[in-house]
Amino acid sequence: MIVHSADPYNAEPPRAALDGHPVTPLDTFYSRNHGPIPRLDPDAWRLEVDGLVERPLTLSLDELRTRFDSRTVVATLACAGNRREELGRVRPLPGQEPWGPGAVSTARWTGVALADVLAAAGLRPEARHVAFTAPDVAPKAQPPQPFGGSIPVAKAMASEVLLAWAMNAAPLPVVHGAPVRVVVPRYIGARSVKWLQRVTAREHPSDNYFQATNYRLLPAGDDAGPGRGLPLGVVAVNAAILRPGDGEPVPAGPTRISGYAFAGEDRDVARVEVSVDGGRHWQQAELDAGAGPWAWRLWRATVDVPAGPVEIVARAWDTSASTQPESAGHVWNPQGYVNNSWPRVHVTGRPG
Amino acid sequence: MIVHSADPYNAEPPRAALDGHPVTPLDTFYSRNHGPIPRLDPDAWRLEVDGLVERPLTLSLDELRTRFDSRTVVATLACAGNRREELGRVRPLPGQEPWGPGAVSTARWTGVALADVLAAAGLRPEARHVAFTAPDVAPKAQPPQPFGGSIPVAKAMASEVLLAWAMNAAPLPVVHGAPVRVVVPRYIGARSVKWLQRVTAREHPSDNYFQATNYRLLPAGDDAGPGRGLPLGVVAVNAAILRPGDGEPVPAGPTRISGYAFAGEDRDVARVEVSVDGGRHWQQAELDAGAGPWAWRLWRATVDVPAGPVEIVARAWDTSASTQPESAGHVWNPQGYVNNSWPRVHVTGRPG
Repeated sequence: MIVHSADPYNAEPPRAALDGHPVTPLDTFYSRNHGPIPRLDPDAWRLEVDGLVERPLTLSLDELRTRFDSRTVVATLACAGNRREELGRVRPLPGQEPWGPGAVSTARWTGVALADVLAAAGLRPEARHVAFTAPDVAPKAQPPQPFGGSIPVAKAMASEVLLAWAMNAAPLPVVHGAPVRVVVPRYIGARSVKWLQRVTAREHPSDNYFQATNYRLLPAGDDAGPGRGLPLGVVAVNAAILRPGDGEPVPAGPTRISGYAFAGEDRDVARVEVSVDGGRHWQQAELDAGAGPWAWRLWRATVDVPAGPVEIVARAWDTSASTQPESAGHVWNPQGYVNNSWPRVHVTGRPG
Repeated sequence: MIVHSADPYNAEPPRAALDGHPVTPLDTFYSRNHGPIPRLDPDAWRLEVDGLVERPLTLSLDELRTRFDSRTVVATLACAGNRREELGRVRPLPGQEPWGPGAVSTARWTGVALADVLAAAGLRPEARHVAFTAPDVAPKAQPPQPFGGSIPVAKAMASEVLLAWAMNAAPLPVVHGAPVRVVVPRYIGARSVKWLQRVTAREHPSDNYFQATNYRLLPAGDDAGPGRGLPLGVVAVNAAILRPGDGEPVPAGPTRISGYAFAGEDRDVARVEVSVDGGRHWQQAELDAGAGPWAWRLWRATVDVPAGPVEIVARAWDTSASTQPESAGHVWNPQGYVNNSWPRVHVTGRPG
């Protein structure tokens, strides 16, 4: 793993480690944290379900597992700061983790549908958002506070949103949120709150720092502040090149390029293209079938790499025919989020 | 109106005519046709509802109006070929209407929910798509055939999809589909089939030419053919500058720029920005409130236009933080669809 910081622990796999794995192995899954990792006693753990509900609930792990049907969903999680490193090369982003393209991973999650738990609590009609609270206190938050966030109630009631206790058929590792985390497919990873302790139905979005101030797309020149900027939720269409690596020497001639792509809510990846001439000509990549509707699509193409230095670029299109913007410079933003500009790697084709 | 062809009749308003009207006046609404305009006798008109339904229906206009609750929805329709003219300047698009940014308009539609009609017919669970058929025969289709298309059943069952007989509180004009047309908000205009005669529940998308072959995003270099390319449905985030017009002399100094923006299914326009230096600096535009969830958002900004020739560019962001690609050259495609590159107008700032 490439460790960006030890405390809080922030690490991503090298890009090549993600390649070829529709489901990411546990020890390769990226880890994004804002505070010390809490170690909760599963036997003592309780989930509170409160707010705009008819019957507030307190559930032990055993009750959660036995009162509700368990479900398994293969879902990709993507940090909103994924590919920030490229933005930082445009203009520095001090104090922000310089994520490469590895802050995205896919797992097979098992748990219960959040919708079933909310139904048991009796969601009141005035509930518009569902907020999650964890115990990990983030020093960066102003004021320092536990991590939290919320999602709209329509998403919370969708069957793919889980309260999960298992990952790739193994118990959920502590670093990934044991005993129970939220999994919100196709939303930024920050909404998939780890070490979940409280689910609160609300009229308004969470006023937690990580919803109201952080994880927002600010216009260039603007400063973060409560309610400022565009709140992030559903992910934007994006792609990365996993092989070859940036700067890697490759043989001139036919060269295999591979990577991942994903799209936001209610959309799928419809096409991935690769170019070795700056986007003048594009070659269609082959897309894998994908491990279900909530998982990324891995792709591969064999392109003819000329001798000498060459930039390889890629882009994905979603099913609405939306594609990625060309340049990182044009999507640069003060907190360095949602870099979905064309991924680029620079290689040198070595004459055989 | 700017008439691109008289037969079939294809016309769009000059961009300035759209400016400042959240709802487009009837005589300004764009008109896209593929064949001669049918003149149907409303008294003799019948709607057939068939295919994967329990109880096929034949409904007169009177039955449609009295058996179901009427609904009114303000919805923007956008032709998939909107802004094709800019693509044609990159590389010619022979035989394709050279639409400017006026192939988008907004009306207040009144009719019944398609969902209510499908419920009355008893949609069978194996239905996955709902197809629409009209009588207008398109000579361009191969083989020549009446216009048609389909939408996924989930969209067909959404309350905003109407079978409409009124537009801006007036009877639906013949050119806009009288006696009854479909209105599918946030889908390409081609799915809002005019002069509707048949609604068919199906397992697969319509195999009509305008679904299976036309209205698809082909990779550059590819030829149209059944099933080739990305089928268009949900619209991509897009924007246009309505004032000033391209080539218009403007006073140097503070100048008012205005336009429209819209986003696809389950997303809203979150931000519109304007730049007079090619995207190095962006200024936030003011967005109007919008006439409801299915309508475009008009926007305006006052920018400081320097003396001399200047290019004004704009871009919209949707609520997933997806934005528009920079260049028309990079989204060029053989049938000239979905040009959502940055809109650009060239003006000359005249020193006062």
